[in-house]
Amino acid sequence: MTEDKATAFAEQRGHLNRLLLARAPLPIKRFFALDGDVYDDGALPRATKELLGLVASTVLRCDDCITYHVIEADRHGATRDQIVEALAIALIVGGSITIPHLRQAFALLEDVRPPRRV
Amino acid sequence: MTEDKATAFAEQRGHLNRLLLARAPLPIKRFFALDGDVYDDGALPRATKELLGLVASTVLRCDDCITYHVIEADRHGATRDQIVEALAIALIVGGSITIPHLRQAFALLEDVRPPRRV
Amino acid sequence: MTEDKATAFAEQRGHLNRLLLARAPLPIKRFFALDGDVYDDGALPRATKELLGLVASTVLRCDDCITYHVIEADRHGATRDQIVEALAIALIVGGSITIPHLRQAFALLEDVRPPRRV
Amino acid sequence: MTEDKATAFAEQRGHLNRLLLARAPLPIKRFFALDGDVYDDGALPRATKELLGLVASTVLRCDDCITYHVIEADRHGATRDQIVEALAIALIVGGSITIPHLRQAFALLEDVRPPRRV
Amino acid sequence: MTEDKATAFAEQRGHLNRLLLARAPLPIKRFFALDGDVYDDGALPRATKELLGLVASTVLRCDDCITYHVIEADRHGATRDQIVEALAIALIVGGSITIPHLRQAFALLEDVRPPRRV
Amino acid sequence: MTEDKATAFAEQRGHLNRLLLARAPLPIKRFFALDGDVYDDGALPRATKELLGLVASTVLRCDDCITYHVIEADRHGATRDQIVEALAIALIVGGSITIPHLRQAFALLEDVRPPRRV
Repeated sequence: MTEDKATAFAEQRGHLNRLLLARAPLPIKRFFALDGDVYDDGALPRATKELLGLVASTVLRCDDCITYHVIEADRHGATRDQIVEALAIALIVGGSITIPHLRQAFALLEDVRPPRRV
Repeated sequence: MTEDKATAFAEQRGHLNRLLLARAPLPIKRFFALDGDVYDDGALPRATKELLGLVASTVLRCDDCITYHVIEADRHGATRDQIVEALAIALIVGGSITIPHLRQAFALLEDVRPPRRV
Repeated sequence: MTEDKATAFAEQRGHLNRLLLARAPLPIKRFFALDGDVYDDGALPRATKELLGLVASTVLRCDDCITYHVIEADRHGATRDQIVEALAIALIVGGSITIPHLRQAFALLEDVRPPRRV
Repeated sequence: MTEDKATAFAEQRGHLNRLLLARAPLPIKRFFALDGDVYDDGALPRATKELLGLVASTVLRCDDCITYHVIEADRHGATRDQIVEALAIALIVGGSITIPHLRQAFALLEDVRPPRRV
Repeated sequence: MTEDKATAFAEQRGHLNRLLLARAPLPIKRFFALDGDVYDDGALPRATKELLGLVASTVLRCDDCITYHVIEADRHGATRDQIVEALAIALIVGGSITIPHLRQAFALLEDVRPPRRV
Repeated sequence: MTEDKATAFAEQRGHLNRLLLARAPLPIKRFFALDGDVYDDGALPRATKELLGLVASTVLRCDDCITYHVIEADRHGATRDQIVEALAIALIVGGSITIPHLRQAFALLEDVRPPRRV
């Protein structure tokens, strides 16, 4: 994903979340706040937490969530090799049913972090 | 989990795996080998990979797998706080349906890593 | 969803179901009949049963099913606030992995039941 | 479940939750608070919300959660017939894989709400 | 599972099902009838259908269902090697999270069909 | 699916897999090899194994995987009636949440194997 694509994804996601939160009752608002805070730096750095979110999203097979965590992991300093090793664990734990989602994640990585830059 | 309990868990698990592998056809044997290798040190250290396995196991709600990855994460140097932060992410991603499994993980941590040792 | 969109959704869904049922063996036909009957008024009114179907569809993360049950819940008298409270429970039980589906449900509700009509 | 059994279940569950919360970081504590609040009376009464929680727990196949929501639904005024109709919807949505959990729910109902009281 | 164990399993399962059906409303009764009929001989023989049920039960991770379909597959003529090949497919599709269930299935097979009988 | 459509699907899938494998680390490469081998003829013929893969894919609700296994089952000699009986079992095990995927499978079958060919 080029910087433009990542920005476009973030903008659309932000737009839909704002719409949802404008209408949502308090428990949903509080859950969204919590969902933001839980990835903050702590005993584990943000990048590692994004990889944890990525593996959870992959074994639960949510393309939108995978895209989000690949972008965030990359943005907070996870390397391409680290992202790919996290995906390998997700594949072994979750099985071949995760492969269509792996295909999407690798296509996305092609843009985010080209494997060879001369 | 005291060292004795961890040893007992490892022994029973090893016993059942050996039984299974003695009867299993080649694809199952090869999958088991792969399942071992994927957690080896690489771009990500073993401890982080065990936390990735722990989060995947928690959102997929497998008690046996949670016990295994808590013990291995601890054994390879993950701290109690890091394990607990990984579980918090699993709870937010996977929802309240994971809570019975969190209860078990925290009970286990009580033995593995007492939070206060004076 | 405007009345037109709801009608279009119902027509396409009906078309595909008729195609499927024309080719399906008896057990599939009987399952479809059962799937219709189980939401009939009984000890629980139809509207409540549609909310039960909506929560089940949301935690199992099926967009097509969510759309169907939001429309039916609305059509049988569930209020916007009741639908939103059901979605809040689905979010807490099912976790952040359900959020992309919540976004869709809220976008749909925007059409079905505008929150403010002066 | 007789009143004694329900009390025993609640006590053990409460004990484990207190243990967990004593050790848990803030995001987990906040999630638990939210998990309590979301079932409060609102546009939908508490009893209906417990039935929503019951259906979600059944299609996601969590015995501990099913036991909890059957007891709470009963305690907040849901009738035996209403609980059973909710379980029928869970069975149709979730399929035969939910049957072992239905067996447990019906065994529990036998104690909570005997079907014939002369 | 020796013949005695298989009989004991069938008796307990039958007992619980009769209890459930005595209290269940019509849609649940009809679903149970359908769940019986769908495995009858047809374009596919019963043994193959039990293997289909076994793979579905394994990837959805239901021990009770796995036990049932292993016994029925064996009883209707599936060989030990066929059952094991079906389990290998379930493992590859469903990933390492299914391993605890595979362990149980192999322990059960040890009784149902000893691999070497001289 | 006409022969042209099946070819197009296979080509696109092959293209994405080659891209993924060009970048993937060893454990992912080995898993893909294993995922190919496990469906080879053995104690069960390839056609039956494709039906096992189809049922697993349907209860786990992966459209891409369903399309793949319907085409492969057909190509290796499974009849239309056998494919449909496998789908009926998936529907009963997995419940109404699988129906949107059944719709797709039946639409696909319409092309792969027209039910009446004079």
